[in-house]
Amino acid sequence: MPQIEPKLLQGFFDYTPKQMAIRQYVIEKWRNIFRSFGYGQLETPVLEYADVLMGKYGEEEKLIYHFYDHGERHIAMRYDQTVPFARFVAINKDNLKFPYKRYEINRVWRAEAARRGRKREFYQCDIDIVGTESLMADAEILQVLHYGFLEFNLPKHVIHISHRKILESFLATLDLEKDKFIEVNRSIDKLDKVGIDGVIQEMKERGIKEPNISKIIEFISIKGEIYDVLNFLRDKLQDSEIGLKAVLELETLFKLLKEMNISDNYLSFNPSLVRGLDYYTGAVFELKIEEFGASALAGGGRYDNLCGIFLDDVQISGVGVAVGFERLCLLIEENNIPIKSNVNTQILVTVFSDNLRQNSLEAASVLRKLGINTEIYLENDKIAKQFKYADKNNIPFVLIIGEEEVKKEVVILKDMINGDQREVNLKDVLKSLETS
Amino acid sequence: MPQIEPKLLQGFFDYTPKQMAIRQYVIEKWRNIFRSFGYGQLETPVLEYADVLMGKYGEEEKLIYHFYDHGERHIAMRYDQTVPFARFVAINKDNLKFPYKRYEINRVWRAEAARRGRKREFYQCDIDIVGTESLMADAEILQVLHYGFLEFNLPKHVIHISHRKILESFLATLDLEKDKFIEVNRSIDKLDKVGIDGVIQEMKERGIKEPNISKIIEFISIKGEIYDVLNFLRDKLQDSEIGLKAVLELETLFKLLKEMNISDNYLSFNPSLVRGLDYYTGAVFELKIEEFGASALAGGGRYDNLCGIFLDDVQISGVGVAVGFERLCLLIEENNIPIKSNVNTQILVTVFSDNLRQNSLEAASVLRKLGINTEIYLENDKIAKQFKYADKNNIPFVLIIGEEEVKKEVVILKDMINGDQREVNLKDVLKSLETS
Repeated sequence: MPQIEPKLLQGFFDYTPKQMAIRQYVIEKWRNIFRSFGYGQLETPVLEYADVLMGKYGEEEKLIYHFYDHGERHIAMRYDQTVPFARFVAINKDNLKFPYKRYEINRVWRAEAARRGRKREFYQCDIDIVGTESLMADAEILQVLHYGFLEFNLPKHVIHISHRKILESFLATLDLEKDKFIEVNRSIDKLDKVGIDGVIQEMKERGIKEPNISKIIEFISIKGEIYDVLNFLRDKLQDSEIGLKAVLELETLFKLLKEMNISDNYLSFNPSLVRGLDYYTGAVFELKIEEFGASALAGGGRYDNLCGIFLDDVQISGVGVAVGFERLCLLIEENNIPIKSNVNTQILVTVFSDNLRQNSLEAASVLRKLGINTEIYLENDKIAKQFKYADKNNIPFVLIIGEEEVKKEVVILKDMINGDQREVNLKDVLKSLETS
Repeated sequence: MPQIEPKLLQGFFDYTPKQMAIRQYVIEKWRNIFRSFGYGQLETPVLEYADVLMGKYGEEEKLIYHFYDHGERHIAMRYDQTVPFARFVAINKDNLKFPYKRYEINRVWRAEAARRGRKREFYQCDIDIVGTESLMADAEILQVLHYGFLEFNLPKHVIHISHRKILESFLATLDLEKDKFIEVNRSIDKLDKVGIDGVIQEMKERGIKEPNISKIIEFISIKGEIYDVLNFLRDKLQDSEIGLKAVLELETLFKLLKEMNISDNYLSFNPSLVRGLDYYTGAVFELKIEEFGASALAGGGRYDNLCGIFLDDVQISGVGVAVGFERLCLLIEENNIPIKSNVNTQILVTVFSDNLRQNSLEAASVLRKLGINTEIYLENDKIAKQFKYADKNNIPFVLIIGEEEVKKEVVILKDMINGDQREVNLKDVLKSLETS
């Protein structure tokens, strides 16, 4: 057979067990958090009819992988988890029990321009509550996000919160054509990347004029205690019914977050927060960690009409958030954030001789029943080589059972990090590991 | 915007939280088993260069989804987990520490002919040990499989074991052209589907003649105690060095399985077992459950040359098994096999009034810390409607905290199945759930 070069596509990666240990830890952490709040897991297909996905992502649509299948159907690979979720809700709306709470942690594909390390295949991690307008839903999404991030031993995070309709009703007070609102939105959305001067420049280019620019910049720069800012806004937007409603909604939201015992230290009202996606209609939020720079580690908001592209007779509103899974994994790896995981092998049980193999096999079974991930050495090698295997594979403990130990009904437990070894009873190994 | 019909591609399915509860249970069960034996998780991309996948699957190759990407590269979607694993090992062989033990549980895609319920997207669940010829590796794979299936509360399974070289060396004793061996193999492989008469017919059509057919049928029908059969074979194959070596390997394998405390009741030597795949070269095995018919729930074997298509200078041998994930999930669902899982919500905490919401929120937090999956009711509704929500969502317990309960520092726990309700201390809820 002709030899084929074994190679990976650019932008695609194999994740080795060492890398998967972090990724799986992050997945399981979030999964447990979502479950503990009663979110059900949904899994949608990787392939969809192309027209289900097309027309939803603006310019970005060109990044969708799409092709014709064996039956000449035009099909496409999942670009995000939101559109397939909307498709799912649209199909099943009559059978779902609302409010419907779901999470999904899965891969998506984007044909991004090739750059070093840029991923064309990556995970997204989303939760949504749909079919309710209750602000308790918004608050719960933030509660999940907050308690979730607390679990990861990361530096302190802040959740930045705003409301789409606050900026909107402020803009309505200016002498500005309505079709410019979206231009202002897009300019402000670039704040983290280009700074205040960049936003000013951006607005100029998009045809916004003075004194509106100054007023907008002043507005998005409002800072202060949450309730002071809300009072200031109530005053500023007193003639706007929509504006006042938005302020009241935020006030209620902050009150609920307080009832959830989330300290104000973790929260910030931030009128410069707009979120890029056009479909948000209520509260919007982003979670950031100052030490890790300006870009958000999670973001989301409330939307009015999840299934608008599929249904014209029903509006299904909801609120959701997406955790930046890949970035979170990278930060944990790069910053050596400690992870408590049960992924790796904890003990290698050596095999002293053919005659004693059964003793080693039995010991390994006992250890597994105690919940200890345990490997047994598979080949016929000298003990020194078996130690080397443990060393190369970062297995922290080695168990040795020789003739002497069998007679005395003990085992020898060797700590591969400090070299200590001691005789223990097999049943006490777990305790010994914990005190090491 | 024009409305788009929300529909799924045929052969593709949304998995709802109820279905995912079973699927995730099965995934987590196997993951924990694999981890407990020290297998690392590998995750390879969904997309590969088409020529990495093509030329490996014979006729089945036509089922691969393939297309040209944005850079006119010919790419393809993963058809199984074995070829990407071989590609991974070929790329990384100089850095891997052998024996290398990995598992992968992931989706693959096949453009199967459309039939009711036939899946074009499904999970595979594989483990392999590569880079060792030790029979301890073969034995361990079977040990993992055996102890894994014991975890699922299924009817008793049997692992059928044979060796590729036993049939091969038997065939060599017949007056049969060597190129007919593969025809015989393929005929026997159909035994489960077509029965003995079908196999005879199949052999006739493939040009096998009498008395060879009778001799082959007699051979594959050998039954009896494992060691008796092995002795019989040792006698029968006494002139074949390869045959005797294979018998010795099986004998050693059965001895190791005994040392692993796997009772003979779970094992069967079955010379009619050949496995379809041409790349097996040693022991082959299948796990079956008699109550669930003739088709296997898992299968695998030993191979000589994992990376043959990619490398011509090194041979990497190994042994592996694939669990039939989709079939296992289906059997659990259809037979109502009890699953112990921590997926579903166990308690709904109701909200008595706006004033008491904070008490409910705090109770919910305490319950989650106790490890109980807990939902809080999100909307402002009467208690009766809150009960209905629990009922519709199959939440087994409801917690009620009214004025009276707050004063007395208790909560009311209502069992939604039998209707019982009682006053308990919040800290004792876990105990109450367990004794219910």
